[in-house]
Amino acid sequence: TKSLLELANAVSSGAVRVVDLTFTLSPDFPVIVLPPEFGQAAPVRIQEISRYDGRGPAWYWNNVTFGEHTGTHFDAPIHWFTGKDLPNNAVDTMPAKDMIAPACVIDCSAQAAKDPDFLLTVPIVEAWEAQHGKIPARHWVLLRTDWSKKGWRDYANLRDDGAHTPGPNPAVMKWLVEERGVIGFGTETIGTDAGQAGHMDPPYPAHHFLHGAGRYGLQCLCNLDQLPATGAVIVASPLKIQNGSGSPLRVIALVGS
Amino acid sequence: TKSLLELANAVSSGAVRVVDLTFTLSPDFPVIVLPPEFGQAAPVRIQEISRYDGRGPAWYWNNVTFGEHTGTHFDAPIHWFTGKDLPNNAVDTMPAKDMIAPACVIDCSAQAAKDPDFLLTVPIVEAWEAQHGKIPARHWVLLRTDWSKKGWRDYANLRDDGAHTPGPNPAVMKWLVEERGVIGFGTETIGTDAGQAGHMDPPYPAHHFLHGAGRYGLQCLCNLDQLPATGAVIVASPLKIQNGSGSPLRVIALVGS
Ligand SMILES: Nc1ccccc1C(=O)C(=O)O
Ligand SMILES: Nc1ccccc1C(=O)C(=O)O
Repeated sequence: TKSLLELANAVSSGAVRVVDLTFTLSPDFPVIVLPPEFGQAAPVRIQEISRYDGRGPAWYWNNVTFGEHTGTHFDAPIHWFTGKDLPNNAVDTMPAKDMIAPACVIDCSAQAAKDPDFLLTVPIVEAWEAQHGKIPARHWVLLRTDWSKKGWRDYANLRDDGAHTPGPNPAVMKWLVEERGVIGFGTETIGTDAGQAGHMDPPYPAHHFLHGAGRYGLQCLCNLDQLPATGAVIVASPLKIQNGSGSPLRVIALVGS
Repeated sequence: TKSLLELANAVSSGAVRVVDLTFTLSPDFPVIVLPPEFGQAAPVRIQEISRYDGRGPAWYWNNVTFGEHTGTHFDAPIHWFTGKDLPNNAVDTMPAKDMIAPACVIDCSAQAAKDPDFLLTVPIVEAWEAQHGKIPARHWVLLRTDWSKKGWRDYANLRDDGAHTPGPNPAVMKWLVEERGVIGFGTETIGTDAGQAGHMDPPYPAHHFLHGAGRYGLQCLCNLDQLPATGAVIVASPLKIQNGSGSPLRVIALVGS
């Protein structure tokens, strides 16, 4: 209990910084676009119910609509067929303790600046480990690409043949899950997978391997450039949507000094 | 940094418990009912986009709709007219450090069991302080009533003259804000205010005093009976809805052993 109050005091004094890794949820934030034969996420809507007016003299509030995988959001194992029969695989049943875990941040911003289809690989992570130590079990791996700093058009980067955005290759996802036991994988882009990941084997390898092993995804993160390579602790607590496959959420990072 | 990793390890080992204070967000959770001349919150909707089927062969996901003040939710200062001109008064602009703060839990479950219109008063809080010490600044005060254990009908407790549920009286809210400097006030009931608070002076005193001073509200909390009177740390990080007045959220408490 003492150390918890020390944490709260450190947050209050600024000795521990609380970094907001979340984009503002608004109608103009780009939503994932799937091939046209598939169901699509609803556009974000924010509809005023009252604003200190005849509809409610003392109060302002809105109704909101969005997809579970819109904006800065969390993916639960039930999101993917590989995780569909796992226990406690939805946002309302997952263990609460999984909502707090440390992060390893791998900076690939230089590579992503040169190649929008840049893929994270096992050798790149091994090079990171040579510098920062082996990725411990139950840590988040966050892929920094600085993609969150782009304008919306370049952020989605949709071309005739689909999105072109960086992400992990199949081998590194299998390895992070099986050999490193990560709790999840997070990106700055619209999905945990690369824009062209539908053509990989297996398709969407981040979704495939993470959720098949009961692990989580985070995407549309920002401010990863404010995190150290190791030592930050991520709080990622999704909405408790009944049998929800994921949800927009506020992702915060605690960073010591 | 070291103490942050110690925290993460303590969460992982179970030495620090993560208690979920959140109700499941579903269409049958009771929503606040205002007088009929006012705008009302939309019913909760969870609409399947695909479920490992022709609409999306490998994935399951939903679109969701709800009001900002539905389910276990957070109230920002802009929600009330008293807070409408304060700086950083919406969920997207509030300081991230305010999302982590310790809690004082005041157990009034015995009184609320006898009287659904039970009101928290200054003398009751002073009696609590005589036992547990003075409420420190920037702490949450959480009112335990065990209201969260009721069936939905008794939970809303709507009668011809409106809702009958416990809450704070005007004097205690003014005092908690001005004399104790609380960061916010949380309840197990549908609002931070009592069911009959529309008839108080000022109407809805929790909303009036908290938001006028830039402080926050939490409501529809559960599992408060699992928290110690002092020492728990609350993580309450609302969705980053553009100019949002509040939002459903996952509220978790860290409890030492
Ligand atoms: N790859 C997908 C396929 C279908 C639905 C969503 C996704 C995501 O990337 C997501 O989880 O945001
Ligand atoms: N009292 C109210 C009046 C209007 C709208 C919402 C409320 C709430 O209690 C709330 O914040 O949940």
